[in-house]
Amino acid sequence: MKNLLTRTSIRKYSDKPVEEALLDRLMNEAARTQTMGNLQLYSVVVTRSDEMKRKLAPAHFNQPMVTEAPVVLTICADFHRTSVWARQRKAVPGYNNFLSFVNGAIDALLYTQTLCNLMDEEGLGYCYLGTTVYMPQMIIDTLNLPQQVVPLATLTVGWPAEKPQQTDRLPLDSFVHRETYHDYTADDINRYYQLKESLEENQNFCKINNKETLAQIFTDIRYTKKDNEAMSAGLMEVLRKQGFME
Amino acid sequence: MKNLLTRTSIRKYSDKPVEEALLDRLMNEAARTQTMGNLQLYSVVVTRSDEMKRKLAPAHFNQPMVTEAPVVLTICADFHRTSVWARQRKAVPGYNNFLSFVNGAIDALLYTQTLCNLMDEEGLGYCYLGTTVYMPQMIIDTLNLPQQVVPLATLTVGWPAEKPQQTDRLPLDSFVHRETYHDYTADDINRYYQLKESLEENQNFCKINNKETLAQIFTDIRYTKKDNEAMSAGLMEVLRKQGFME
Repeated sequence: MKNLLTRTSIRKYSDKPVEEALLDRLMNEAARTQTMGNLQLYSVVVTRSDEMKRKLAPAHFNQPMVTEAPVVLTICADFHRTSVWARQRKAVPGYNNFLSFVNGAIDALLYTQTLCNLMDEEGLGYCYLGTTVYMPQMIIDTLNLPQQVVPLATLTVGWPAEKPQQTDRLPLDSFVHRETYHDYTADDINRYYQLKESLEENQNFCKINNKETLAQIFTDIRYTKKDNEAMSAGLMEVLRKQGFME
Repeated sequence: MKNLLTRTSIRKYSDKPVEEALLDRLMNEAARTQTMGNLQLYSVVVTRSDEMKRKLAPAHFNQPMVTEAPVVLTICADFHRTSVWARQRKAVPGYNNFLSFVNGAIDALLYTQTLCNLMDEEGLGYCYLGTTVYMPQMIIDTLNLPQQVVPLATLTVGWPAEKPQQTDRLPLDSFVHRETYHDYTADDINRYYQLKESLEENQNFCKINNKETLAQIFTDIRYTKKDNEAMSAGLMEVLRKQGFME
């Protein structure tokens, strides 16, 4: 797949516009991705207006890409359209439950990744914002998402104006298991995480933050138990409000 | 992207083996996909043994692909490896919560779809089994998945021995919204679902099942409220047992 092996997330974009026709073509092609019962349980909201980008930014901790990118895409799990169709066809939809949220999320995320791979091939830059599931209510309110629509992924998109260094990845054996899951020995862990822990950038992180190990950067600073618990409660509340926990 | 526009799910496979080196290369390349904090919150369990395929089959409603495919891949959200690493590095992981499950699921599904796109390019056939989240406990027991590992996606993989007709897709305007979500009028729904409803195959489904509309096939037979509710409860119970709801 062209450019996959050299890809990086792109956070700075040139002034060159992302033409609607190009993006529409890629969003249409991405729909060839497999989908549950061929129902296409997703929607994409395309944000181009500066005003809307400014409104979305706080939900993404005001990361500058949101307001600086020519286009922001919010991809949602969507059982709303299917349910409207069903009701209009004398059918009674039964999708106000957790499994249906998960089914919609799967469809939305598989679609998102085909779109990412297409953008890589086209030379378009993008950054995937994991913040989308942190404070989804702000996004729901801004984009006017109805019941049974939940935002899952955000992509900021534009032509690259930077060429960042590629980040490391764990070796294949660390995440592939043969026949059954084999638990990790202390030696396995040392071997698999050695490269990551040896990188100058990561050692600097530890120094700057006064942490003994890189893992502590993740547990104590980047993804803390306290934040995770607060955002878990918020996300569950959003699933309830959007009608997926009845 | 090569073969994307002509792709179909493949359920029948030739006797030609899927070489380990090829599959390993693709699984390694797919890891270039973006991932949360570069933690790669996923694992893949590769099933090649007939005995293990037979054990997995019931969790997938005994669909014949599971035992007939040369390879079955089960892709899991995995916070276990990261947590083992953290504990070994004097860090206290705080990932036994719902948000962390969702973060792992996102990582696992994005990875899965890049792998699918790579297999399409290679000419490998695969079928995505959505059943993975229906009765995950059976899969967990069979594959020996530890706490904080939950199966999300299954791919049956092999060289194609069939060339199925491509299925329809909804038009772009039905799932893309500009700036804000625009709700569907009755006319929109008629227009967007016209092609799907007019297909001979779908009209036959209605006749055979004695249903008035195609939507009723979905709500009354394929994805019923009763099944969805039972499987929602089961899935939530699995998240609890795997340590993601503490």
